[in-house]
Amino acid sequence: MFGFLRPKENRFYELFEGSASCIVRAAEEFEDLLSDLSHAESRAKTIKDIEHKADTITHETIELLHRVFITPIDRDDIHQLISKLDDIVDFIDAAAQRVSLYGITYVPMEAKNLAEICVRSAERVHNAVKGLQNLKDPTQIMAECVEINRLENEADLMLRQGIAKLFREETDTRSLIKLKEIIELLETVTDRCENVANIIEGVVLEYS
Amino acid sequence: MFGFLRPKENRFYELFEGSASCIVRAAEEFEDLLSDLSHAESRAKTIKDIEHKADTITHETIELLHRVFITPIDRDDIHQLISKLDDIVDFIDAAAQRVSLYGITYVPMEAKNLAEICVRSAERVHNAVKGLQNLKDPTQIMAECVEINRLENEADLMLRQGIAKLFREETDTRSLIKLKEIIELLETVTDRCENVANIIEGVVLEYS
Amino acid sequence: MFGFLRPKENRFYELFEGSASCIVRAAEEFEDLLSDLSHAESRAKTIKDIEHKADTITHETIELLHRVFITPIDRDDIHQLISKLDDIVDFIDAAAQRVSLYGITYVPMEAKNLAEICVRSAERVHNAVKGLQNLKDPTQIMAECVEINRLENEADLMLRQGIAKLFREETDTRSLIKLKEIIELLETVTDRCENVANIIEGVVLEYS
Repeated sequence: MFGFLRPKENRFYELFEGSASCIVRAAEEFEDLLSDLSHAESRAKTIKDIEHKADTITHETIELLHRVFITPIDRDDIHQLISKLDDIVDFIDAAAQRVSLYGITYVPMEAKNLAEICVRSAERVHNAVKGLQNLKDPTQIMAECVEINRLENEADLMLRQGIAKLFREETDTRSLIKLKEIIELLETVTDRCENVANIIEGVVLEYS
Repeated sequence: MFGFLRPKENRFYELFEGSASCIVRAAEEFEDLLSDLSHAESRAKTIKDIEHKADTITHETIELLHRVFITPIDRDDIHQLISKLDDIVDFIDAAAQRVSLYGITYVPMEAKNLAEICVRSAERVHNAVKGLQNLKDPTQIMAECVEINRLENEADLMLRQGIAKLFREETDTRSLIKLKEIIELLETVTDRCENVANIIEGVVLEYS
Repeated sequence: MFGFLRPKENRFYELFEGSASCIVRAAEEFEDLLSDLSHAESRAKTIKDIEHKADTITHETIELLHRVFITPIDRDDIHQLISKLDDIVDFIDAAAQRVSLYGITYVPMEAKNLAEICVRSAERVHNAVKGLQNLKDPTQIMAECVEINRLENEADLMLRQGIAKLFREETDTRSLIKLKEIIELLETVTDRCENVANIIEGVVLEYS
């Protein structure tokens, strides 16, 4: 659809794609972090670097918005989309920093499952964002959005099971509080992916 | 105002109304759940069914948005409104699932009061949504929105009293954590009702 | 830019400025509250009064939106901005009420630092809101928004350090839960300031 656009306008899609790549990398790094807690601190640092990278992309996007007169999609949609993509990385980072800071030495299976759901949801967000460049074929984008919604429901179920198990099995209340918070942050990651899916659905509705 | 609209466009109002009905039913079911905890599990299942019903309505709305060229109100407003109505049911469901999963055997009076405030707020949301079909007479809609705001303040006060009492009287810290979470979810229900009221106020501002 | 506007339209800027002033006053009052807990109850009452004042300003803004035909910026932006400004005061009030209700007798340094960051962020929000009257010169407004974002990152770091320290040093789990909640509410204040900065950035993008 936007084959006729000049380089500056295509730049927005590169920036969205860059931000979505950060999400996938951060989610994968977090999954690795949970699978081997002995390197939690260094992996949390890597995730913090990715988070800063995503911040830089967000700022470049907003500056570009100020410099160009023509944008491929609504200015407000660009602004919303890049901010909400950034939010996802922020929550992965928040979970990673907590695992590291709290000195977590054991994570329940449900947290690992949630980390894996986050990776899958991040990949779908990445696909949906790539699809934005070709809005005349919205079927694939919409399928990604449906899957992101489904993964959020799956994450919600995992959260409930995980927290119910913590109350049954984790006898140390302070550990329970820490692990409950990490599980909730991971579920929030899938929530924020759903927010992005909602924005993308809105863009598709408007332009396709 | 929209008497001249074709069936497909009126369908949006039926879908909003259907989603708002789900909220009222879920809130009433939750109030019953708290008043007799021995049937918590079966009532939580009923609420989960209502939540799925609301999801189906949301998806039908978004699909309809893709099929029709003319919408009675702004496409983005329809999208926002149906998503935020859905959110309310999600939080009632989240509270219900926790009561059931945590095996709660006692709920403080403040939680019951909050459940009742949720029912009243749900009814006001239902009224406001029904009012959308007649935007030339916004006074009634705006009165519903003011009342939803007032109920949110009432819920906030109840939350604070309830949690302060938990800290004073609930000697088991793990029970305190569980009940605090349920009370907070119920207050969030009234928050999300306020979000819907804000969207409706925005629509009224634009179209009346 | 809007020197030619009639009094009613300028009124919107006075209302934004009034709401932003409430934020600064509430944040300063909260900083004082934490520095001398023996007057927590009376200071929490003062903050509650400021919160009611901000509510009144929000309602006046929405009523004005219904009465005027021409608005200096988009109707939806006015509605969003005044609602999100109000949100900030709500979270300062939520933190203040909890300190008072929970009978907090000790606050960690990190909470005091967060309260100070809230004051600085509130001042930047106030500046950015004042800048809206002169959208032809957006550089200053954008600088305020960048600083609000930076303060949110600073607050996030302080939150993590504060909560990690609570887990290490606060041996009473119930006190830990209370203080953790207050610290999280203060970090949310800076989050909500960032929300307002995002809205203002959006307005600047559209009108400058």
